[in-house]
Amino acid sequence: MKLDEVTISRAILQTHAEIFSRYLELDIAIVGGGPSGLVCAALAAEEGRKVAVIEKKLSVGGGMWGGGMTFPRIVVQEEGRRLLDHFGIRSTLFQPGYYVASSVESVAKLTAAACDAGAEFFNLTSVEDVVIKGDGRVSGLVITSTPVEMTGLHVDPLTLSAKVTIDATGHDAVVAHCIKKKKGDITIHGESFMWAERAETNILDHTREIFPGVIACGMAANAVAGEARMGAVFGGMLLSGEKAAQIAQDQLNKM
Amino acid sequence: MKLDEVTISRAILQTHAEIFSRYLELDIAIVGGGPSGLVCAALAAEEGRKVAVIEKKLSVGGGMWGGGMTFPRIVVQEEGRRLLDHFGIRSTLFQPGYYVASSVESVAKLTAAACDAGAEFFNLTSVEDVVIKGDGRVSGLVITSTPVEMTGLHVDPLTLSAKVTIDATGHDAVVAHCIKKKKGDITIHGESFMWAERAETNILDHTREIFPGVIACGMAANAVAGEARMGAVFGGMLLSGEKAAQIAQDQLNKM
Amino acid sequence: MKLDEVTISRAILQTHAEIFSRYLELDIAIVGGGPSGLVCAALAAEEGRKVAVIEKKLSVGGGMWGGGMTFPRIVVQEEGRRLLDHFGIRSTLFQPGYYVASSVESVAKLTAAACDAGAEFFNLTSVEDVVIKGDGRVSGLVITSTPVEMTGLHVDPLTLSAKVTIDATGHDAVVAHCIKKKKGDITIHGESFMWAERAETNILDHTREIFPGVIACGMAANAVAGEARMGAVFGGMLLSGEKAAQIAQDQLNKM
Amino acid sequence: MKLDEVTISRAILQTHAEIFSRYLELDIAIVGGGPSGLVCAALAAEEGRKVAVIEKKLSVGGGMWGGGMTFPRIVVQEEGRRLLDHFGIRSTLFQPGYYVASSVESVAKLTAAACDAGAEFFNLTSVEDVVIKGDGRVSGLVITSTPVEMTGLHVDPLTLSAKVTIDATGHDAVVAHCIKKKKGDITIHGESFMWAERAETNILDHTREIFPGVIACGMAANAVAGEARMGAVFGGMLLSGEKAAQIAQDQLNKM
Amino acid sequence: MKLDEVTISRAILQTHAEIFSRYLELDIAIVGGGPSGLVCAALAAEEGRKVAVIEKKLSVGGGMWGGGMTFPRIVVQEEGRRLLDHFGIRSTLFQPGYYVASSVESVAKLTAAACDAGAEFFNLTSVEDVVIKGDGRVSGLVITSTPVEMTGLHVDPLTLSAKVTIDATGHDAVVAHCIKKKKGDITIHGESFMWAERAETNILDHTREIFPGVIACGMAANAVAGEARMGAVFGGMLLSGEKAAQIAQDQLNKM
Amino acid sequence: MKLDEVTISRAILQTHAEIFSRYLELDIAIVGGGPSGLVCAALAAEEGRKVAVIEKKLSVGGGMWGGGMTFPRIVVQEEGRRLLDHFGIRSTLFQPGYYVASSVESVAKLTAAACDAGAEFFNLTSVEDVVIKGDGRVSGLVITSTPVEMTGLHVDPLTLSAKVTIDATGHDAVVAHCIKKKKGDITIHGESFMWAERAETNILDHTREIFPGVIACGMAANAVAGEARMGAVFGGMLLSGEKAAQIAQDQLNKM
Amino acid sequence: MKLDEVTISRAILQTHAEIFSRYLELDIAIVGGGPSGLVCAALAAEEGRKVAVIEKKLSVGGGMWGGGMTFPRIVVQEEGRRLLDHFGIRSTLFQPGYYVASSVESVAKLTAAACDAGAEFFNLTSVEDVVIKGDGRVSGLVITSTPVEMTGLHVDPLTLSAKVTIDATGHDAVVAHCIKKKKGDITIHGESFMWAERAETNILDHTREIFPGVIACGMAANAVAGEARMGAVFGGMLLSGEKAAQIAQDQLNKM
Amino acid sequence: MKLDEVTISRAILQTHAEIFSRYLELDIAIVGGGPSGLVCAALAAEEGRKVAVIEKKLSVGGGMWGGGMTFPRIVVQEEGRRLLDHFGIRSTLFQPGYYVASSVESVAKLTAAACDAGAEFFNLTSVEDVVIKGDGRVSGLVITSTPVEMTGLHVDPLTLSAKVTIDATGHDAVVAHCIKKKKGDITIHGESFMWAERAETNILDHTREIFPGVIACGMAANAVAGEARMGAVFGGMLLSGEKAAQIAQDQLNKM
Repeated sequence: MKLDEVTISRAILQTHAEIFSRYLELDIAIVGGGPSGLVCAALAAEEGRKVAVIEKKLSVGGGMWGGGMTFPRIVVQEEGRRLLDHFGIRSTLFQPGYYVASSVESVAKLTAAACDAGAEFFNLTSVEDVVIKGDGRVSGLVITSTPVEMTGLHVDPLTLSAKVTIDATGHDAVVAHCIKKKKGDITIHGESFMWAERAETNILDHTREIFPGVIACGMAANAVAGEARMGAVFGGMLLSGEKAAQIAQDQLNKM
Repeated sequence: MKLDEVTISRAILQTHAEIFSRYLELDIAIVGGGPSGLVCAALAAEEGRKVAVIEKKLSVGGGMWGGGMTFPRIVVQEEGRRLLDHFGIRSTLFQPGYYVASSVESVAKLTAAACDAGAEFFNLTSVEDVVIKGDGRVSGLVITSTPVEMTGLHVDPLTLSAKVTIDATGHDAVVAHCIKKKKGDITIHGESFMWAERAETNILDHTREIFPGVIACGMAANAVAGEARMGAVFGGMLLSGEKAAQIAQDQLNKM
Repeated sequence: MKLDEVTISRAILQTHAEIFSRYLELDIAIVGGGPSGLVCAALAAEEGRKVAVIEKKLSVGGGMWGGGMTFPRIVVQEEGRRLLDHFGIRSTLFQPGYYVASSVESVAKLTAAACDAGAEFFNLTSVEDVVIKGDGRVSGLVITSTPVEMTGLHVDPLTLSAKVTIDATGHDAVVAHCIKKKKGDITIHGESFMWAERAETNILDHTREIFPGVIACGMAANAVAGEARMGAVFGGMLLSGEKAAQIAQDQLNKM
Repeated sequence: MKLDEVTISRAILQTHAEIFSRYLELDIAIVGGGPSGLVCAALAAEEGRKVAVIEKKLSVGGGMWGGGMTFPRIVVQEEGRRLLDHFGIRSTLFQPGYYVASSVESVAKLTAAACDAGAEFFNLTSVEDVVIKGDGRVSGLVITSTPVEMTGLHVDPLTLSAKVTIDATGHDAVVAHCIKKKKGDITIHGESFMWAERAETNILDHTREIFPGVIACGMAANAVAGEARMGAVFGGMLLSGEKAAQIAQDQLNKM
Repeated sequence: MKLDEVTISRAILQTHAEIFSRYLELDIAIVGGGPSGLVCAALAAEEGRKVAVIEKKLSVGGGMWGGGMTFPRIVVQEEGRRLLDHFGIRSTLFQPGYYVASSVESVAKLTAAACDAGAEFFNLTSVEDVVIKGDGRVSGLVITSTPVEMTGLHVDPLTLSAKVTIDATGHDAVVAHCIKKKKGDITIHGESFMWAERAETNILDHTREIFPGVIACGMAANAVAGEARMGAVFGGMLLSGEKAAQIAQDQLNKM
Repeated sequence: MKLDEVTISRAILQTHAEIFSRYLELDIAIVGGGPSGLVCAALAAEEGRKVAVIEKKLSVGGGMWGGGMTFPRIVVQEEGRRLLDHFGIRSTLFQPGYYVASSVESVAKLTAAACDAGAEFFNLTSVEDVVIKGDGRVSGLVITSTPVEMTGLHVDPLTLSAKVTIDATGHDAVVAHCIKKKKGDITIHGESFMWAERAETNILDHTREIFPGVIACGMAANAVAGEARMGAVFGGMLLSGEKAAQIAQDQLNKM
Repeated sequence: MKLDEVTISRAILQTHAEIFSRYLELDIAIVGGGPSGLVCAALAAEEGRKVAVIEKKLSVGGGMWGGGMTFPRIVVQEEGRRLLDHFGIRSTLFQPGYYVASSVESVAKLTAAACDAGAEFFNLTSVEDVVIKGDGRVSGLVITSTPVEMTGLHVDPLTLSAKVTIDATGHDAVVAHCIKKKKGDITIHGESFMWAERAETNILDHTREIFPGVIACGMAANAVAGEARMGAVFGGMLLSGEKAAQIAQDQLNKM
Repeated sequence: MKLDEVTISRAILQTHAEIFSRYLELDIAIVGGGPSGLVCAALAAEEGRKVAVIEKKLSVGGGMWGGGMTFPRIVVQEEGRRLLDHFGIRSTLFQPGYYVASSVESVAKLTAAACDAGAEFFNLTSVEDVVIKGDGRVSGLVITSTPVEMTGLHVDPLTLSAKVTIDATGHDAVVAHCIKKKKGDITIHGESFMWAERAETNILDHTREIFPGVIACGMAANAVAGEARMGAVFGGMLLSGEKAAQIAQDQLNKM
């Protein structure tokens, strides 16, 4: 082993700066690396699109890691099982219609699939605003370093452009709220009471363009639509990510 | 979709309680889900051992997620490339002998491999002490819930037993420090200055039983031995995890 | 003494998982383990109902422990003394109509009575939302681990079902606020100025169903109704708990 | 209901001031209201001694409330079951020799028993020093208000006298550490590794006078003696509280 | 020196409990021990009224201690100099009409005068609500221990009664806000921009009954009235305290 | 009232800057404005010395404000009563030899007396180091702004000179610790257990020069000497302040 | 080197007090020492005006230090290059129309120029209110010490007068918000979405008097006007500072 | 103005990555951008060396910004005035031998000079360790992002190499402590008491190589040597920076 510390540092710095610079112009910017964002990233990248996942935290996976109340298991209903199989996530039958999978395995397999398909990941990166120009369409994201944001240091952000933006940020619906905070024409109804069956049924309807250039998926879709809350069942989440990828693909095809 | 919230909750609770209870008796307890711990878990489980990774945080992956100084890339030297390939992690040549991989992909692929091999994961779980009985050997771990520990609430821990314990907790060498804090016969020299080449060369020697029943690997091995520091190069880490799995296997074969 | 640590751990884990799973379907879910919640739990369980107290903190007892301004004594007026006697709480006459009891003894005796009557306790458990389905009635609670909530970790909750829910969470009226936050049809007037006599007189009127499936009692009842504040006198609180148990019993008898 | 707020306030203030003033001179000061302290308080008060429990927190019960890792159940072995029965705590057999009880019920019943026997409770009260005069014996405690201590406000403490002091403060061994901090002649070995069987067997030997005027019981006894750690099994704790009451009684009889 | 620690503790506890209990029924409750509150307390007590100052902090004096921007000097204009002299506070002429005094001396002399006149002080005591009964008049205060409030511990308050309440709590106008928070009929306009001359001229007009039973003085008077801000000049503050004492005296004479 | 804001600001700024600049050279620097420091300041200034009290907090008075355990009363024994009378502090007899005074009045009267005698006060000022030159004697203090210190901002301190320094900083013995931290030849034994009688008797012996140029008084004297702790009795404190003033006077007379 | 600590302290104290007192009456008060404020200060002082920059932090430079996302470089477009050259800040051409400069050099050179032109700096000084008298014009600022503000200590502010005030406080538009908070007649629209080109074009229009006596420049101008956000391009900022200096000069010339 | 957000972002990212990568191999790494570090950087760069200043904070200037006790003025004695003049910093004579300058101007001019001479600045960058290889000489620094360090996120550092390292980190002597923490052969005596004259005289002697490859200057030099403390006089600091540049130059010339 012949190793030089400065070469290691340069390998990291230069490789990343090159990739980061290249990915400042995207086909699809997926904000949030939870279950629906990961599915969307994997499927959109499989179609050959230039995709990046912008994740606020150090790790992707969102609320999946902790399962339900820290018991690291997730439940997927019959309809979503097809996607578990697609990504090689093993599951066991608990009761007819209810499959249980490991939450850790689920994150790992979805992320690995997105990487294999060619999606890029920018973690520790927060979205704090959007770019909207004369056509009134979201055409980019204003991004900052999460640790800088956490410490409240006064540092300006950077900007990336995206033909389509996916808001896959869960309950918080971060992109939608960025638009609303600046008085963009959007109504965020907020999640309603829990009613798993209803929420899982309707999530696909709510997975749609919520503002020119922005598609909501996963819990963000339900939060914007005022839909019921789901709980620790993930079938609808996975299917919503799949649908978001299809809508984005359709929009890009028309450009 | 026909769904009942209580059935979802029960599916999670009962499945996890059953698995947790079963895995309170382990062949190998791997403390720390960073790169060396994940490699060790994957390879030991491939050999058919009953293995669990005890991870303090919500997500596994340790220091790999952030790459170097938040640029999410890792460097692996020639010697370690074999293991990247084994786990399907793609890499590019930066300069002869230096390969660069995505840090996000690396975590995802190592974790997926450990899952596929049958390892279990207990995340949000902290080790705060060890069990040592008449034979002077570490035969179990005292574990607690990380959120409880973070909030300082006064709650008693639980205990699991393991025939072999792996300390894969990085710089902190948590298991070694638990032993030292209670005046067990162990010397922790602490990591020395950075000297990547030396550290990467010697880590395999330091991957060894550091106390009856406890094998150190990864940065914990170097920290206990007083070895030089490595920096953001991961070949030695991966190889150290591999060796720890071999030593554990040897010990178990002799029992 | 022959003892094995793993058996101890399993005894705790399996016993609790079994009870927890069983009590995910309740007759009466009592949210808040303060004085009115404990009285309600004890009396409802004495009637044979399947009852659980969901308590946010590690310990039950609420505001009673600290008496008035940390002097650990509580005052109960003539009308409430009957319930002190029912639960075996000793009191001394301060002045005609005013009885003083130990705040510590009061908590202990009420809790012991609830246990003896068969009520279950889930402490360190926070209610963050309710389940409402097509009939518009609260039919369950979305619960999370308090330490997880305190640390802000991103972990999904679980859900339990209850035929009747009691909001016994004091000033905060937690269940009522969960409903209001999600735009349920409920008005919370908030506690008015202090006027002990009026508040103690009217609390029984305010102990009633405040939303389909939810009965408020104790200070939560007064807070929802906009009633005056009570101060450190507890007769009305105890009587309100008693009345809530009766209303719940009536509702269950009609189902 | 005829009620006057000032009378309520005076009832609390005067009753407590009178009791507090009277209990500034004690036979036995029990520091710490966890399981061993509560058993000790109940049994010593049953013998007619003037006893007070000094508890730092708002609630007594110590580490029992949370059971093991927040599952609210405790395990008691065969030897300790006699005391569960004495205090009316219900338990179920998990496996021969292992009984499981509700942690909430255990706290409530022990506390209620101590109250019934005549012990007083001073909660939200912290011990920060001891009184030692010419005879070198601990003859009193320096106490402060816990909220004052938490906020770091500069306020002088008060003092109470006790013929015998019990250190029932768990791992922290607060009284022992007060003595050590001021260079009193005491050695605190600190708890050793977990080994439940050994710890439970030896705790009764360690329940003894550790400094003139101070008896350690419960985990404080093991912590001072350097004994192994116990885990979530409580038989030894209860028996240790019983023995501390007997030693205190013997010492008082000789005075 | 023959001294017993318990006697010292009893002397403090019993003397204070006796005084505290006696002063739970007041002629005048002055909330806030800043300059106007101290002047009011001194002058009202000189008239023989039963007066207590309720001060949130450990020390009285409010904003006077720090002078202007931590330079410990205060300025008093010609009109207020009479009161400086009345209380024996030395001052020097800076420029015609502007006198400078030591901020530390000012606090000490005002406080000493209030004590000499017979006013009582309850420091570390926060007002969190008011008592209003059928006549719609504030007839008492709900008080709590400041350290308890700071730590957020769940402890009930006590109550005292007062024929007249003075809100001398500065910008915060605490009593007025307690009334407003509970929807009492009061408008708090909030302090306006700084304009010392105007504010000093008008403060006496604003020193008046702002709600039945409550007189505002000092900066609280200006804050309620929407008057301009004063800055570090104290003449109006002192005169406002004087006027509040006169109004209170008038009201009491009429009862 | 004719008032100009800038003139008010200038009056404060210029008056204080002139006094501060003048008092950068002192006869006696008294660090700490608690009871012993205030007595010392009053008596030394009465003798015509140029004296300043350096107080870390916004208000002087130290631990006296809170009395014992927040009950605002202090006890003074027979021997110290003479000084209460000297400063006009009223007291009542609790039991032969024990006098009780108001803690608020005590602070106010001592401070007023020090002001009347001509002592200056620099509050919100922290001592972080001492000046020692070739003669090995403390000849000055390194002072900083307390808010700056609290916020951890990187700002350099200023320096004042004093012929004699009094360490009246209580338990913390701040000046002594500054000397020790920099390896000055001083031993700080730390306060011993509580034993009021012994501590009150010996405090006058311990009130002495503890390092060339530094006299300790009050609790700092006992803390340095390793004397017993006193509790909430203040006679010795006042007498110690008196003695420190006498020693300082003697030293200055010899210069 | 012959040096005396007290002389050093006096040199600092007296020099600063003299300058501070003199600069309590200003021609132009510039609030905020970021890029536009520094340019404005330099150019206004070059015209001979009495100018002071009031900066909240310890250091001036605002958001320039961190460049974009902590990469310490700033971009200036063609139009602004003239000012870079004016202040001697070196830049390199990245692409036609885009110049890159060092963020550290930019701060240093702008600040040095302002100093050379005669502007004064009051750092660690926060503006918390404004002075408005009968003419309805802002004629002064209420200032406080930032560390005092950060620690929440209760200390009164001082006041300075200014013929013209510049709000150069960036997004926060601090002066504008002070006016609005006190119900002054001003509308703050808040920054809109990012659109660099538009924002850079319009900023000069928005650099204008926003309230009698107050001129907004830099991001504060855009924030008040509801203009688009700019990102890490600084040409408009510099030009805005230049224009604010011209408007101020015009206003002063007319007085 | 024709502007594109992505081009602005790329200009910043690519320019900085190129400069950062190039400056990973330095002649001289100056850790700490306070007065001595800035002088050293300016003078060494003037000699044509490849120099970078590694600054932990967002802004350079260290303790100079706040002058003495937040009065933003610094004192420089006769000997140092030459360097003030060299960097164009204006000063006024306070008393023979004592010159006063603006602290803000001093930082700006020193920084501007270092930039003009060609030094690079890496701010928000913390040094957490050193590189030492077979020759026992410090040959590089382990650096991390300050915001990451502040948030405690688990992210690996990068490494840069330097032929000579300057420890200009003030009291903290960060580089020296990195070496000591890892048991390098270095003794850090720590600053002694304040004695400005002595400290200013001796600082040049202490400005020397303190470990192979590391030169200390400024307060770090005195801290390592155990020299007296200086206070707010800066002549020695500036001269020490000058000497450090000369020593570094000598060492480089010999390589």
